[in-house]
Amino acid sequence: MKRHLLLTPGPTQVPPELCEVLGRPIIHHRTPEFQAILKEVTEGLQFVYQTKNDIYLLASSGTGAMEAAVANLLSAGDKALVAECGKFGERWTELCETFGVKTKVIKAKWGHVPNPQDVKKALEEDKSIKAVFITHSETSTGVNTDVKAMAEVVRKTDAVLAVDAVSSLGVIDLKTDEWGVDVVVSGCHKGFMLPPGLAFISVNAKAFKLIEKSKTPRYYFDLRKSKEAWADTDTPFTSAINLIIALNESIKIFKTKGLQNQFDHFEKLAKFTREAVKNLGLTIYPDASCISNVLTAVNVPSGIDGNKLVKQMRDKYGISIAGGQGELKGKIIRIAHMGCITKENIEEALSCLEKILSEMGYKVPAKA
Amino acid sequence: MKRHLLLTPGPTQVPPELCEVLGRPIIHHRTPEFQAILKEVTEGLQFVYQTKNDIYLLASSGTGAMEAAVANLLSAGDKALVAECGKFGERWTELCETFGVKTKVIKAKWGHVPNPQDVKKALEEDKSIKAVFITHSETSTGVNTDVKAMAEVVRKTDAVLAVDAVSSLGVIDLKTDEWGVDVVVSGCHKGFMLPPGLAFISVNAKAFKLIEKSKTPRYYFDLRKSKEAWADTDTPFTSAINLIIALNESIKIFKTKGLQNQFDHFEKLAKFTREAVKNLGLTIYPDASCISNVLTAVNVPSGIDGNKLVKQMRDKYGISIAGGQGELKGKIIRIAHMGCITKENIEEALSCLEKILSEMGYKVPAKA
Repeated sequence: MKRHLLLTPGPTQVPPELCEVLGRPIIHHRTPEFQAILKEVTEGLQFVYQTKNDIYLLASSGTGAMEAAVANLLSAGDKALVAECGKFGERWTELCETFGVKTKVIKAKWGHVPNPQDVKKALEEDKSIKAVFITHSETSTGVNTDVKAMAEVVRKTDAVLAVDAVSSLGVIDLKTDEWGVDVVVSGCHKGFMLPPGLAFISVNAKAFKLIEKSKTPRYYFDLRKSKEAWADTDTPFTSAINLIIALNESIKIFKTKGLQNQFDHFEKLAKFTREAVKNLGLTIYPDASCISNVLTAVNVPSGIDGNKLVKQMRDKYGISIAGGQGELKGKIIRIAHMGCITKENIEEALSCLEKILSEMGYKVPAKA
Repeated sequence: MKRHLLLTPGPTQVPPELCEVLGRPIIHHRTPEFQAILKEVTEGLQFVYQTKNDIYLLASSGTGAMEAAVANLLSAGDKALVAECGKFGERWTELCETFGVKTKVIKAKWGHVPNPQDVKKALEEDKSIKAVFITHSETSTGVNTDVKAMAEVVRKTDAVLAVDAVSSLGVIDLKTDEWGVDVVVSGCHKGFMLPPGLAFISVNAKAFKLIEKSKTPRYYFDLRKSKEAWADTDTPFTSAINLIIALNESIKIFKTKGLQNQFDHFEKLAKFTREAVKNLGLTIYPDASCISNVLTAVNVPSGIDGNKLVKQMRDKYGISIAGGQGELKGKIIRIAHMGCITKENIEEALSCLEKILSEMGYKVPAKA
């Protein structure tokens, strides 16, 4: 058997107990049996989201839920603000522009995060801005935006705050209700440890007022249809049945372990990774003030081909880590420590990384 | 173990060998290993579609692919023709209207199919109609539209023909290229015997000319993005990885058995079902001229509660059949014979049906 260790920031490793659920015989989605699961999954997601808001399930990747947020909140000609700091923040901007939204963009330098005070200023300067879009864990650079501080700014205005929590949910803390986050999108293939294909979106009353007013043409991602179907414990279109059943089991793991324990675990794992990486003489890419516990982005040492490094990790050792995206292509490597990744997995990966770096001519510093 | 026999027209029973594939450890989607599978799946779909056209994969239910067809082919204000004969035909109309398309609707009576000559006439009367939408196998009523005859009419005009083949593909013949069908949408959870969550769309050059011109705002279902990503053997957004890998195995079953053999098999199974149903003294709902081999829609005898019948089949015997939708709610039952359903499964289901009908007071005729 060839080893397949996934340390990529999505999809993440699927633990054997969830693989087993995915391989079970299918049941029909319009049955009391499946309705009971749908209800349990939704309540389970509310637990992980830390919210009482409605949460709707979409058979799509995370981007589908992002489109649902933009298309349902805004109409062409409306104004939005995107505070971006990487590839997934840029996706909010692309989506807004696609739907004809007048989009003001606050760009943080990659490796840094947007400043809530800049968002505050922008909202004061233009009170007609209807929605603010941010990225909780920006997986392209390995940083976390301070959602709590952003929500503190936005909740005092008429604008709604929509957060991309695709890679952060269940990994780092996100108190949807306590912080006052209006819309949160996420997906099943990061913290929830499942194959991609199921996304979710939480919506509060403030956001629903915009949803009812939006004139953007939408059908598959129309959250009014989701709300209507949910009144009958249903989804408007055929559900991603086996992912939903597996998600129910995944959430049970969160409930058994406890949310805060999970966050503490990932924090420890992230610190361990950062220390271990530094012991190899490598440096961390993002700024220390906003470093993420979801994944660690590491600078590729000068003279080393980052793309080749990732390829060799995969081809020689069966360990998938991610390279850089966009302007960081070839310049960083990214090691995820969400989901069911253990300290031993990280140790194993870094030991392989050390070997390959040596072979590629990098001089690993002598151990202390 | 409780029995779960699915005779519903989607999702269909997942055979054990595909369950096993679905439960395998995940691999990353941006690797040569997955790219090779993507390529093989696409070629395999071309085999089942009987086409050389591009086929794009979407992480969504079948409705997502229908939205992709409408949103990519047409802009607000464009004209379209929908020839509908049931709930899924109505979905084309709803989609067109959602996107501001001026939609002429030819409605066949339920249980019947639209007449190609009516489509011909409508296209002659209004040469500005850009697209015609039809449903190959209308699962709400159990009929098949004559796609070949429709294509013969439409291919002589400037309009493109888009076919919903979600439940028909791989079950009944659809010669995409030979008949000249411009766009065909389908999904993985009917003939391909997989859990829902993966849809596909084939597009030819005539259709692509419209796609390039469409001004409808679209992002997740933007087929220009699909085309661009496919040039690098990729999908624009995270793929439904494990469904794609399982689809590859499902298609291998088609290749081993041979397409025509499969069609013959389903025809035999459908005939067997219809005969067996008639032997119970029951009547077939759709008109004999357009009856489908995908599923058999049966009239519920007068005095019998159709919804209760479906419920009892499920609760007493673990056999899921479908009831009627829309105006047929409670009035018909639908028994699918696509995918891995065998003659023995049908026999078993009908034997349970007979028992329940008797208990509900229906007098089953004496056997010949």
